[in-house]
Amino acid sequence: MSLIFYYAPMSTAIITRAVIDELGLDCERVKHDLSKGETRTPAFLKINPNGTVPAIVHDGTAIWESAAIAMYLGDLFGVQANLYPAPGPKRGEAMKWITWSNVRLADAAGRLSAALPAGSEGGVEVAVSAEQRTAEALATAQKDIAECLRILNDALSGKQFLLGAYTLADTHVQGFVAWLGMMGTELGSYANISGWLARCAERPAVAKTMDE
Amino acid sequence: MSLIFYYAPMSTAIITRAVIDELGLDCERVKHDLSKGETRTPAFLKINPNGTVPAIVHDGTAIWESAAIAMYLGDLFGVQANLYPAPGPKRGEAMKWITWSNVRLADAAGRLSAALPAGSEGGVEVAVSAEQRTAEALATAQKDIAECLRILNDALSGKQFLLGAYTLADTHVQGFVAWLGMMGTELGSYANISGWLARCAERPAVAKTMDE
Repeated sequence: MSLIFYYAPMSTAIITRAVIDELGLDCERVKHDLSKGETRTPAFLKINPNGTVPAIVHDGTAIWESAAIAMYLGDLFGVQANLYPAPGPKRGEAMKWITWSNVRLADAAGRLSAALPAGSEGGVEVAVSAEQRTAEALATAQKDIAECLRILNDALSGKQFLLGAYTLADTHVQGFVAWLGMMGTELGSYANISGWLARCAERPAVAKTMDE
Repeated sequence: MSLIFYYAPMSTAIITRAVIDELGLDCERVKHDLSKGETRTPAFLKINPNGTVPAIVHDGTAIWESAAIAMYLGDLFGVQANLYPAPGPKRGEAMKWITWSNVRLADAAGRLSAALPAGSEGGVEVAVSAEQRTAEALATAQKDIAECLRILNDALSGKQFLLGAYTLADTHVQGFVAWLGMMGTELGSYANISGWLARCAERPAVAKTMDE
């Protein structure tokens, strides 16, 4: 088995790192510096033509998009590690939350990050012109994030984790929620989310991402 | 096996319908009218708290997000139908394209749709204020779409379909590309995409979506 993990500090690749660490996978870790354009080099664009991290190469095949990587590694290594359900409806629940966090939550978080004053992006580097940092864009992003957080808070009602027991769905979703927290989004009023974040932070793989 | 499919005409749910039709799955089909707010009723929000279609309920479990549904149904029913790879790197390729189309391509397509003059959204209903239809937003969406199409066109070089043989990755990605075409995006200059779209359209399940 050969696994290479391409990442950058201060990027959503730390979510993938947490997934890899949860699964205890041995891999080669290749660091790229976003500010130096290292994900836009011809060599890296052959791996991920989108010029983004995270990306992995598993046994010679390149896979990108955070959600795809989490579900792919879950499929291959997560079931025996008790971190990903076997095929069936329970796995479908994990897939919907992982995809949702990449589609809806990450989209709103990205727009918040782009609309915030430069320097408040929660440690994630974002290239945005001053014109894009409008009050309207900020308000829309905050409204969409509040809606996402309401949905997540409701889903966690009466549960320790999204699927009951801890899975890679929690690893993946909490990564994006933690980023919101770093950008100053007030999470304290979402009681279920607050408790869940604290339980997630007890996982060594998740705690390591918090340290950064 | 019980499968319920929630959809709306003129929405991305037609991509899910093509996935279901490709797999030949029997299901109950429940139509919602977006313009009447039927995906925002308390009953539907219990199924999908995001208030969007597509959504499915499989054996009592609700699953949403177009990409999650495609990968979930592929996982359960696609391998024996020769429409989805078995677990392993080839499946990872299917997952990255399905996720990419939901994350990057759908995001850019949605922004294009929101920025176009009212009535040009390619048959998909979009609620946008006049202030959001700015020339800058339109230009950014068009630039991002051109980048997505370049990536897709390169990936199809020398291939009949994304993974060689036709899979649900083609079903899913072509649905979003077809939407771009309906919004007036010029696809003819992307030779590999044009040929691939024509080959996809030979599939009865895909052709049915074109008729709408």
